[in-house]
Amino acid sequence: MRVIRAGIDTYQQPVVYMHRDCEICRSEGFVAMTRVQMQLGHRTLIATLNVVVGDMVAVDEVALSEAAWNALAPEPGVLASFRHPEPAASVGALRAKVFGERLDESQYLALMQDAVASRLSDLELAAFVAASAGERMDQGEATALTRAMLAVGQRLDWGEGLVLDKHCVGGLPGNRTTPIVVAIIAALGYRIPKTSSRAITSPAGTADTMEVMAPVALDLPAMRRVVEREGGCIVWGGNVRLSPADDIMIRIQRPLDFDSDGQLVASVLSKKIAAGSTHVLIDMPVGPTAKVRSEVAGAHLATRLGGTASAFGLELDVYRSDGRQPVGVGIGPALEALDVLKVLRNDADAPADLRERSVALAGALLEMVPGNAAGTGASRANEVLDSGRALAKFLAICEAQGGFREPPHAEFTADVTAGVSGRIAAIDNRRLARIAKLAGAPGSPAAGLATALRIGHVVQRGQPLFAVHAQSRGELAYALEYAATAAPFAVEEVA
Amino acid sequence: MRVIRAGIDTYQQPVVYMHRDCEICRSEGFVAMTRVQMQLGHRTLIATLNVVVGDMVAVDEVALSEAAWNALAPEPGVLASFRHPEPAASVGALRAKVFGERLDESQYLALMQDAVASRLSDLELAAFVAASAGERMDQGEATALTRAMLAVGQRLDWGEGLVLDKHCVGGLPGNRTTPIVVAIIAALGYRIPKTSSRAITSPAGTADTMEVMAPVALDLPAMRRVVEREGGCIVWGGNVRLSPADDIMIRIQRPLDFDSDGQLVASVLSKKIAAGSTHVLIDMPVGPTAKVRSEVAGAHLATRLGGTASAFGLELDVYRSDGRQPVGVGIGPALEALDVLKVLRNDADAPADLRERSVALAGALLEMVPGNAAGTGASRANEVLDSGRALAKFLAICEAQGGFREPPHAEFTADVTAGVSGRIAAIDNRRLARIAKLAGAPGSPAAGLATALRIGHVVQRGQPLFAVHAQSRGELAYALEYAATAAPFAVEEVA
Repeated sequence: MRVIRAGIDTYQQPVVYMHRDCEICRSEGFVAMTRVQMQLGHRTLIATLNVVVGDMVAVDEVALSEAAWNALAPEPGVLASFRHPEPAASVGALRAKVFGERLDESQYLALMQDAVASRLSDLELAAFVAASAGERMDQGEATALTRAMLAVGQRLDWGEGLVLDKHCVGGLPGNRTTPIVVAIIAALGYRIPKTSSRAITSPAGTADTMEVMAPVALDLPAMRRVVEREGGCIVWGGNVRLSPADDIMIRIQRPLDFDSDGQLVASVLSKKIAAGSTHVLIDMPVGPTAKVRSEVAGAHLATRLGGTASAFGLELDVYRSDGRQPVGVGIGPALEALDVLKVLRNDADAPADLRERSVALAGALLEMVPGNAAGTGASRANEVLDSGRALAKFLAICEAQGGFREPPHAEFTADVTAGVSGRIAAIDNRRLARIAKLAGAPGSPAAGLATALRIGHVVQRGQPLFAVHAQSRGELAYALEYAATAAPFAVEEVA
Repeated sequence: MRVIRAGIDTYQQPVVYMHRDCEICRSEGFVAMTRVQMQLGHRTLIATLNVVVGDMVAVDEVALSEAAWNALAPEPGVLASFRHPEPAASVGALRAKVFGERLDESQYLALMQDAVASRLSDLELAAFVAASAGERMDQGEATALTRAMLAVGQRLDWGEGLVLDKHCVGGLPGNRTTPIVVAIIAALGYRIPKTSSRAITSPAGTADTMEVMAPVALDLPAMRRVVEREGGCIVWGGNVRLSPADDIMIRIQRPLDFDSDGQLVASVLSKKIAAGSTHVLIDMPVGPTAKVRSEVAGAHLATRLGGTASAFGLELDVYRSDGRQPVGVGIGPALEALDVLKVLRNDADAPADLRERSVALAGALLEMVPGNAAGTGASRANEVLDSGRALAKFLAICEAQGGFREPPHAEFTADVTAGVSGRIAAIDNRRLARIAKLAGAPGSPAAGLATALRIGHVVQRGQPLFAVHAQSRGELAYALEYAATAAPFAVEEVA
């Protein structure tokens, strides 16, 4: 079968498109959604079959989805052969987990090996996620899974010395402390090689925000050069692919969203250990619309993180923060970048909450370093910010990543005003995020919304609650229409 | 967005293809594999998004997979709108099940309503299957799930009188008793409206075998006409769609293959009750390569089936049969049909085991009818077969379904011979099935294999073990190549 490119993005799932009347479908008894093993020179790939009944491919052609195309990187005109894949070796382990057994390290290793080789289907991975939900994956298993995820990925070695990192579990709109923390820590001479994600369901990921200020799609050698020169970086993890097993698990876990401390621990720590980190601070926002919803749940998760970290000799602290409302003014890549730059530049209108959080996190991370006295971290962080050294370091990192640029401003903006006077009793983070997405974020980097209002603030009827930013009139109207009914701010009339 | 047909078969999964640069992807923040809700006139459908990066669709077009196209049946040039779907109402119930809770009837109803409306993703359905595996779905839950599956489907009403049925759990190659049992039962004046499945992973389903002798893709009114005229039918269940929830669950369960008596009970009984059956005989082959692997497992499943059946006032008996080896001579649609016709025609070379099983099953089903004396069923079945009345009834049913035809014969055949002399110690049903599929079954109905050898038979070196039948030289070679290494017959040298 002649290989062509389908030009269809099915995210990470490899899909092949064959004609219903092709020889191979007939002889192998392949039907739609069969899993097939493709051989292309020395490379093999297991993919899901979609059967073409129209004219997208000829009977002697096979078209590959982007994930399959990128995995195999075929030469023009190359031929592929197909067969039924052998059952994955880890199917027994999967079955055991589904039936309630505890798995050992070799079983988790088999599962992760098959996951990265795409020998396990998405249905099987979903079954694994469900079977590991809640308390069904204990501390020892989380450690075993972490080890397995590490074994099937890469592991960075930075040589001598400390490697610091910070990580936030569960997003809060506008909580864009990472660029500031990295700038502070690197300005103080520590190594902090930070990889971040793009938005999947949120209006901006740290990588999206950083990208409006500098290139982020660096590969591993480029990332290493930046860190060797400047001590820190803020790059998109997608091109670095330190933990391919985690990338796959996240693809399945995110839409299912079954809480599991065990899976979260393995996901976070496998990436940190793979990045060569020695000291990690976890930012854990706690609030009713945040990922961690109560102090009890937070304490439990912190214990689990600490337990597995210490099994790998990784120093880990947890910083529990307010997860009830957004941080900073902007929500959306460019608007958040503006907040970051204002803090770094010590602008008069820099959002105080974003600065405070960044200083607290940088301070806590500094105090994890052996020899640094307790209670000195925040003041050192403030000093570095005030002196402009953090800004200088941030700009140097941007230059090393490919060049600093100012964030763009949106072409259209409109205010949404309060319908009644009163006190803001609650803020729905998810509705704010949705408005920013409807306005075009993160696809249009300048889109999103801006608000400085917080719980407890008193507003007057007709006063702006937030401003919507968009790059087209249509998207602006779209966001405003939803905003009119969604009421992300709950305003209590004051008696 | 203008709706066009993609001409891509993704089995039952609705998929929509939109261009990466389309307005809707940008404004809604849709990315590959997002689930989107499509509005088309008064109809809505939830589908998975595949993002086109090539030229398959224009930026103002959306292409629909076959499942989406068939579900919406769009008029030419019609426009569709899209938005994010609301979370399914049953997500709470799914979550509860995953976290180990017992669900009640209203929760199962919510799950099945969302499943048939495709508000639950395949990942969520897989999680549900995993969470219900093994003993995680008790008797009461199986009954509640059965009731929920019935509530979201159709239910046939045949008016007064008995409605008999037989069902086989777990396939055995060549175990094609259904056409014979239906012919016997209908010839004796009983009503037996039988729906059967096509092969998914096997070389032939009962519907495939029946189709080489008569049309089977009847819709519900046509099926009803056949049964009203002849008392029985053997049609493909896919066009009748009595239990859409079961069709969906089977699509997920089959590739995962986690045994669960609870799910199996709900699947089988929801279809039988929906078909209006009053008396059902379950054929349960037990053997190491069959679905039910031990007598203990068989007894347990029989108890569960009986318990739920009686909650619905359905009479149910289980007939446990030998599941160690194939039945009849042929494996593949036409070859199995030839066996069926030989039994019905009382040919001298009719496979004795297929006749015996059919008679035993028909006899057991007859003895379930109130007033029929125990021990008389098999002799009545034999009588009807011997007298030619079963054959006449079968031909009449075929005529009513659209006309009888003789099964085709394959163009190419080749024998596979014994490499050593000895006694057949075991037969691997799965390898035999694979050879038949490589030869082209069920896509080429005449393809498959034929063998009369059974466990205990003694063969001489060079003697044929089985004959491969194919419609092309390539497929024949392909099947023979695999057969040479697979050794489906374990021959023990006799000392």
